[in-house]
Amino acid sequence: MSEDRIRNPRLRGLVVSAEEAAAHIHPGETVAMSGFTGSGYPKVVPLALAERMDRCHAAGEGFQIRLLTGASTAPELDGALARVDGIALRLPFQADPEARQRINAGTLEYIDTHLSHVAQHTWFGFYGEVDTAVVEVSAIREDGSLVPSTSVGNNKTWLDLARKVIIEVNDWHPLEVDGMHDVYYGTALPPHRKPIPLIHPDDRIGETSLRCDPAKVVAVVRTHAADRNSPFNAADATSEQIAAHLMDFLQHEVKLGRLPKNLLPLQSGVGNIPNAVLLGLARSGFRDLTAFTEVIQDGMLDLLRDGVLRSASCTGFALSPDANEEFKRNIDFYRERIVMRTQEISNHPELVRRLGCLCMNGMIEADLYGNVNSTHVMGSRIQNGIGGSGDFARNGYLSIFLSPSTAKNGSISSLVPMVSHVDHTEHDVAIIVTEQGVADLRGLSPKQRARALIARCAHPDYRDALQDYFDRALRESYGKHTPHLLGEALSWHQRWLDTGSMRA
Amino acid sequence: MSEDRIRNPRLRGLVVSAEEAAAHIHPGETVAMSGFTGSGYPKVVPLALAERMDRCHAAGEGFQIRLLTGASTAPELDGALARVDGIALRLPFQADPEARQRINAGTLEYIDTHLSHVAQHTWFGFYGEVDTAVVEVSAIREDGSLVPSTSVGNNKTWLDLARKVIIEVNDWHPLEVDGMHDVYYGTALPPHRKPIPLIHPDDRIGETSLRCDPAKVVAVVRTHAADRNSPFNAADATSEQIAAHLMDFLQHEVKLGRLPKNLLPLQSGVGNIPNAVLLGLARSGFRDLTAFTEVIQDGMLDLLRDGVLRSASCTGFALSPDANEEFKRNIDFYRERIVMRTQEISNHPELVRRLGCLCMNGMIEADLYGNVNSTHVMGSRIQNGIGGSGDFARNGYLSIFLSPSTAKNGSISSLVPMVSHVDHTEHDVAIIVTEQGVADLRGLSPKQRARALIARCAHPDYRDALQDYFDRALRESYGKHTPHLLGEALSWHQRWLDTGSMRA
Repeated sequence: MSEDRIRNPRLRGLVVSAEEAAAHIHPGETVAMSGFTGSGYPKVVPLALAERMDRCHAAGEGFQIRLLTGASTAPELDGALARVDGIALRLPFQADPEARQRINAGTLEYIDTHLSHVAQHTWFGFYGEVDTAVVEVSAIREDGSLVPSTSVGNNKTWLDLARKVIIEVNDWHPLEVDGMHDVYYGTALPPHRKPIPLIHPDDRIGETSLRCDPAKVVAVVRTHAADRNSPFNAADATSEQIAAHLMDFLQHEVKLGRLPKNLLPLQSGVGNIPNAVLLGLARSGFRDLTAFTEVIQDGMLDLLRDGVLRSASCTGFALSPDANEEFKRNIDFYRERIVMRTQEISNHPELVRRLGCLCMNGMIEADLYGNVNSTHVMGSRIQNGIGGSGDFARNGYLSIFLSPSTAKNGSISSLVPMVSHVDHTEHDVAIIVTEQGVADLRGLSPKQRARALIARCAHPDYRDALQDYFDRALRESYGKHTPHLLGEALSWHQRWLDTGSMRA
Repeated sequence: MSEDRIRNPRLRGLVVSAEEAAAHIHPGETVAMSGFTGSGYPKVVPLALAERMDRCHAAGEGFQIRLLTGASTAPELDGALARVDGIALRLPFQADPEARQRINAGTLEYIDTHLSHVAQHTWFGFYGEVDTAVVEVSAIREDGSLVPSTSVGNNKTWLDLARKVIIEVNDWHPLEVDGMHDVYYGTALPPHRKPIPLIHPDDRIGETSLRCDPAKVVAVVRTHAADRNSPFNAADATSEQIAAHLMDFLQHEVKLGRLPKNLLPLQSGVGNIPNAVLLGLARSGFRDLTAFTEVIQDGMLDLLRDGVLRSASCTGFALSPDANEEFKRNIDFYRERIVMRTQEISNHPELVRRLGCLCMNGMIEADLYGNVNSTHVMGSRIQNGIGGSGDFARNGYLSIFLSPSTAKNGSISSLVPMVSHVDHTEHDVAIIVTEQGVADLRGLSPKQRARALIARCAHPDYRDALQDYFDRALRESYGKHTPHLLGEALSWHQRWLDTGSMRA
């Protein structure tokens, strides 16, 4: 290192090994860690903690913690702690195979939470006291304040509330990330809250570093470790078709004057479809766009570089190794165009509604009446979690859900008579896009929505069966506002469980 | 009248009969009317319109409109227009028996909408153009501006957007209501929105009257007609028990320091249980409270008069005839303590979250995992609609749902394995109260929620059956995060349809 990342003398005196740091965490504690979508999570203390838990369990001693983060993390955190059965309760979001397996086996309790709610619910005391915070940063300033790394998440709240703080200083992150963050310290608890003074998606309203009471810091650990950067798959034909349908729709809305030429601030989930959508925006000639979203992925960097996107606001990154290299190479360029915020601000209903975000999220399934399931496979197995999709879908200008019309080689229809779990109610879903087309549900009653969804979005293999259910429900349903045959409404899911296919 | 209610000479010149006014409305129009929870709706033009529709239908001519309001209205509006099949599409809320019957027969299309969304969705063009606004007011000022009556609802938006305006001036309302309203003109469409400068529930941020372009006014009608004021039933034992449980809970939260002594701004649904809760607050010694809610009912007037409630913000009233007399008698007292707002402000997510409302709403049913159905009986028949409950439950400090544990003489359990429709997802429900007790779902995983709900809220007649479903689901469910037996999840509802009881 050309410059020491730990510029505060007192904190430099607290540098220890990961094992020594992890020893400050005790069984039964509530531990709040950094990390959002595989960026900015602590890399070594959780591993050391998992090893200690494993030794305790081998010796017949219990050792579990309640684990809070920003959102999903990585194998070194969720994976390692889940593998040793070290997590009693997990929230607010996860996407780890080991953790998921235990959650769905019923041995790990999980609370799937709106990401904008986490900080305030912790402040309100809904999750009890926070014992220890473990937060990765890119540097510690002379005054002891902390420069975040590649995510901000709930770190402000964790540092404010925890009794003890463990800091990982990761010099894998470029020093030049300093200045990219915007940590807003104007929040308060009701009845003392004030308007949040953010009017444009790129406004800066806070500080570039995290305040941290040095007296609470019990350990500092030096690391040099990469974020969980997964290679990105090229968009497949289905994603391209979904993106193309969405582009047609957006261009139509602009033509009708319902959207400005440079659209409204984009919020976008992470994955191949959102990436195809971002590519589509560039190809379709959209310019001068902005993003107010949770996560910046490869496609957004491309758009920033090409001038399609003027600025992007986020709380974390999900980059491929290649994109990460590009990010580091041109960090000065990106620092001028990217603002990283706490997740209570990036996802805040007040701001999402004020800015009028154009919200694009994935889903597992939708039903005939426009209810959306984002989280549960066959109603009982959680996939990841709702994340920020509810913060955005309820409050944005347009709530758009994107999905292929089938899954698992066509054995599952993404359009079903009744969803097996609801994350976004009929009141919160405006547009559904599959590779088959766009269903514009605005201004439609439930029955009108069903007709639009069957005609525009259903896969041809399932269209007749959906129409048949709807026709019979229209005749036989108890009420005909939202016609349903309750004995049959979830039968497609049961059939898949029984036979491996939703087909009759 | 000692003073003419129509002080603008041009508008005085437009006074006509209800029949002449209704003649300005043509078949196929989108008509936006005033009215919120049976207050401030037009009293005579809808009746005249219904008569005209009836004559047209008798002559073999079609005559239907698309009808928008603030929320529910009264027999003279929803009832009369539904009875003659004059409504093609209805939104955003209704509670009328005639309209409900047609909606559930499948002959009247209805869009059940978050009440905070209506104004902006109309501005966004999601419902097409507004042809005619029909708005009741208490007076017209010299400058042509309109003093609202007993509800504000969406009137600002209707007057801003409609091509033609019909005004009913109702001198049944006291003149002294002038000054009670607060119409905020700082709204805008994205990307031009600014923070809403409301910090305390009783802040005044707008004007006391509605702007109205006189050139758009096509008719003015004088009326003298009461709002739909229904007598209030005294609280029954079940409501009293629910209120008592809630009081214990609130006092406990105050003791733990999670709520201030004077609580946080109250939002409360309408009905016997909320009224029992309001009485309970007074009896339990709470003082210096505030309300930031949609509707003021009898109980809130009592609390204001007794000094339990310092101020109340609303968008409409639902008073008994007796309470209405009291309101009129002491209008000067109430005008100092009540602020009536547009419903986009009374229900605005930005403000509900900033103020940290204590949100108390009714429900039809909840399931083991805390999902709430507020709208659909047996999954298909709509009762009323979601109203503002979603605006508040998602964004307030605490989302509380209140219900007796059974309905229809015990043949229906309000706690079921899986709700037959979801309006409030598991992510948005914190506390459930029945006459059996309080289930505090904060910080609990789905399975922990199920145990709390069965133990605390279920009726003894259904407790064993719920436990049995849960136990078997725990063993046999595909996933064990949210255990379900899909072939059985909705069987309680089907059994009620088949046998008239959910009991096995």
